[in-house]
Amino acid sequence: MESNQSPAQLKLYNIIFGTESSWGRTFDLAIIIAILLSVGVVLLDSIPRYHSSYGDFFYAVEWVFTIIFTIEYVLRLWCSPNRRQYALSTFGLVDLLAILPTYIAFWFPDAISLLIIRLIRILRIFRVLRLLQFLREANVLSRSLSNSRRKIFVFFSMMLILTTIFGCLMYVIEGPHNGFATIPHSIYWAIVTITTVGYGDVVPHTALGQAVASVGMLTGYAIIAVPTGIITAELAMEISRDRLRTNCKNCERAGHDTDAKHCKYCGAQL
Amino acid sequence: MESNQSPAQLKLYNIIFGTESSWGRTFDLAIIIAILLSVGVVLLDSIPRYHSSYGDFFYAVEWVFTIIFTIEYVLRLWCSPNRRQYALSTFGLVDLLAILPTYIAFWFPDAISLLIIRLIRILRIFRVLRLLQFLREANVLSRSLSNSRRKIFVFFSMMLILTTIFGCLMYVIEGPHNGFATIPHSIYWAIVTITTVGYGDVVPHTALGQAVASVGMLTGYAIIAVPTGIITAELAMEISRDRLRTNCKNCERAGHDTDAKHCKYCGAQL
Amino acid sequence: MESNQSPAQLKLYNIIFGTESSWGRTFDLAIIIAILLSVGVVLLDSIPRYHSSYGDFFYAVEWVFTIIFTIEYVLRLWCSPNRRQYALSTFGLVDLLAILPTYIAFWFPDAISLLIIRLIRILRIFRVLRLLQFLREANVLSRSLSNSRRKIFVFFSMMLILTTIFGCLMYVIEGPHNGFATIPHSIYWAIVTITTVGYGDVVPHTALGQAVASVGMLTGYAIIAVPTGIITAELAMEISRDRLRTNCKNCERAGHDTDAKHCKYCGAQL
Amino acid sequence: MESNQSPAQLKLYNIIFGTESSWGRTFDLAIIIAILLSVGVVLLDSIPRYHSSYGDFFYAVEWVFTIIFTIEYVLRLWCSPNRRQYALSTFGLVDLLAILPTYIAFWFPDAISLLIIRLIRILRIFRVLRLLQFLREANVLSRSLSNSRRKIFVFFSMMLILTTIFGCLMYVIEGPHNGFATIPHSIYWAIVTITTVGYGDVVPHTALGQAVASVGMLTGYAIIAVPTGIITAELAMEISRDRLRTNCKNCERAGHDTDAKHCKYCGAQL
Repeated sequence: MESNQSPAQLKLYNIIFGTESSWGRTFDLAIIIAILLSVGVVLLDSIPRYHSSYGDFFYAVEWVFTIIFTIEYVLRLWCSPNRRQYALSTFGLVDLLAILPTYIAFWFPDAISLLIIRLIRILRIFRVLRLLQFLREANVLSRSLSNSRRKIFVFFSMMLILTTIFGCLMYVIEGPHNGFATIPHSIYWAIVTITTVGYGDVVPHTALGQAVASVGMLTGYAIIAVPTGIITAELAMEISRDRLRTNCKNCERAGHDTDAKHCKYCGAQL
Repeated sequence: MESNQSPAQLKLYNIIFGTESSWGRTFDLAIIIAILLSVGVVLLDSIPRYHSSYGDFFYAVEWVFTIIFTIEYVLRLWCSPNRRQYALSTFGLVDLLAILPTYIAFWFPDAISLLIIRLIRILRIFRVLRLLQFLREANVLSRSLSNSRRKIFVFFSMMLILTTIFGCLMYVIEGPHNGFATIPHSIYWAIVTITTVGYGDVVPHTALGQAVASVGMLTGYAIIAVPTGIITAELAMEISRDRLRTNCKNCERAGHDTDAKHCKYCGAQL
Repeated sequence: MESNQSPAQLKLYNIIFGTESSWGRTFDLAIIIAILLSVGVVLLDSIPRYHSSYGDFFYAVEWVFTIIFTIEYVLRLWCSPNRRQYALSTFGLVDLLAILPTYIAFWFPDAISLLIIRLIRILRIFRVLRLLQFLREANVLSRSLSNSRRKIFVFFSMMLILTTIFGCLMYVIEGPHNGFATIPHSIYWAIVTITTVGYGDVVPHTALGQAVASVGMLTGYAIIAVPTGIITAELAMEISRDRLRTNCKNCERAGHDTDAKHCKYCGAQL
Repeated sequence: MESNQSPAQLKLYNIIFGTESSWGRTFDLAIIIAILLSVGVVLLDSIPRYHSSYGDFFYAVEWVFTIIFTIEYVLRLWCSPNRRQYALSTFGLVDLLAILPTYIAFWFPDAISLLIIRLIRILRIFRVLRLLQFLREANVLSRSLSNSRRKIFVFFSMMLILTTIFGCLMYVIEGPHNGFATIPHSIYWAIVTITTVGYGDVVPHTALGQAVASVGMLTGYAIIAVPTGIITAELAMEISRDRLRTNCKNCERAGHDTDAKHCKYCGAQL
């Protein structure tokens, strides 16, 4: 399929998907600004004061951005060497998700209720996810998260077991008349406490409850280390792997910093 | 005692205690789902709205799960090569604890008060502890906690000394009319503050109290490092010990990642 | 002065200051329990309900503990090879501080006001500091804190500069009518926010204030690393120095864990 | 331009900019105390009670400090080998900023409103920034922050994407009647929650909202590692680079601690 790419498609591909050429960088910057502006419009539109004054203007701007992103999506699809692969990739789906809500809300105005239209239009905020593809370092982070996903799963499981037991203890000790209305609500309290967020909407009132809560806080304060340790170790390993990936073309040695521009052994450009 | 195991017992043992065979994995998954569902029933049952509507249904479901776990417990006991050892192991006791509350609440309905029955039935939530035995990585974590238990004890002692002094200072400075009613309550406030939970149910009102509280917060923010350092160091050591434990059967070299499936030197399956 | 120690003094010295003999360990344990009990009495005495019921009993118990600690202090002084050195050491001063308040409150009942007597009696809580001398690991921690004291001073200075600027910004943006009454109070708010304690007694109400507060929170969340890094690095270095301090008497090699009982090279007892 | 420095200028330069001579250290200390006192005056002046009693005294003191800092600024300018460079350096601008507000507020009393005068006078608090130049270690920290600025930018971008999505979800789930009035306000709530500050001025009330908030808290608790890892790694690298920078003049070996006074290999003074 790649051999079918026409010269025009190839040129466009380098602009849209590449970051090497100055046109490519200009295109990326324009898209980033368009995303930020369109998200800004959704944010402002949610403020009643602005919605009543500028609602129609926001609606018009929204359509401008939707048309821009639609053209961009069609161009990306057209110039891709493998269209199916792009359309089904994470970023391809996010690109599609960025334009769908406006069309859905427009095409089915009567078939669905106003509430659902409102929800669909808020979906447009997920456009911020498109920004991720412009953060090159996001790859290192997402790879380390993916590598440590099992450890993170174990950590979250243990946190849930711990908070279930603490929540349940507090439900028994404090009871519904002190704000610990149900066991799920007490578990929510335990999560708020152990992660050291501490809203203060539900607090223990009995001496025993405060003692148990203190143990919970100290535990949370101590185990804050576990995910830190897991992710930091994985991140360090991933960064060192990244350094080994790039070889100098001159002396063929690896181990350069990710932001290095010259080989640190022979000075040749990387 | 091991030689007394009949072939049927051995086969059942491999299914119930093992995770190698596909039957063993299916059995584990079924038990995990049963635990999660039965805990979910306890959670829902604690919500007054659901209790009044579905209380009888929850009670019936509870009995189904209790019977399932009872059968499982009897099978585990029957097929164990060393029954006494299983019954007295941590997981054996947790398995027993998972079924006892329902029977106790049923057998002594008149001898004990309603409150105690309620408490006993909430004990069923400790079934979540059974999930720990299915988390293989929990071993690494519990071993590192056990190795650093003395350091953690020292840390907690120092935290208690620190919070006692801060609590006492604030009791003297702010006094009962600002919410620092007693010294124990002021110590509770100091724990809430130094662990950076910060409920806000008790806050300093005087300028001096706010200054002392600020010093406490900055201290807590700074010493958040100590348990992090202790546990992370121990965890890293435990993980590296774990890697040295597994040797490749082909080339006899160790140092493989815990999730590695093939020897990284010769490629043989581990 | 050391040669002046009589055999009785030397024997008592080994019991009171040493932890090797079983008598020495028993003595330490007894003192630890006495400290915990006497602190417990101060805590309970601060609860109005208990003070009115058991105030006289607490007062009697307090005298028993004071006499015990006085005898202990005199014995420590008597059996010390260098009395002046003990009396002026940190722990010697803490030991003295643990008995003085009761005598002061007794000897000058009329000369000073009731409030000051109350304050002096609360000073007894600083007895918890005596516990520090029984935590052997406290040495490692206090030495690493002492080594990194300059870095910690720099960190605290920067935190104060940062919180001063954030507090001042919020005072200008939010103003007194939103709870940011004075600049010192706004700085207190900034400390509460940047250390992620977050009481919620003062919160920003304007959109701009919430935006600036968000920047402050993210900054605090990010720089939580700095003290962690400083102390962890120092702690790791101190622990490795500690390992190099103990040499095996048999093979003369160092590098043993602080809790090791046998040489890891030749197995001889350390 | 350096050759134009007269001996008087050079001598003054060593006192004002240097920290080697005892006169230089005395000068630095005097300036630090003057900065702290002048900031203290701004703080006290913001308290209405003190402003009405001592407002005129504070105003006079303020002028004294402004004249002191003005003389200092002129001297610094005069004795600098390169005046333009000093005037345009960060610390030169901060020095200027420390004296300008008082003059501006004095020279244009009628041209501008009282509010702006008040704002300008609060600007004086930025004098605390002058303290930074006396913290030698601040260089290490600012260099590591500057080296990891791209990673920190990526981290902040991801935090903003994450909090936008969480805030938007909560806006849809909880809605304006539960305190999540607008999307920007919900994003503010998400930042308060994910950084574990947790004011408690806005809290989820629905079960689904509490579940989503719990996921957010656990995420925030887990990713607290990322900036810690980034900055700690950079700080460690910067410290080790710092150690390699100083060479012993006797044996020419590097690797000394930043606070070392003697070469650790040959003992010569560094």
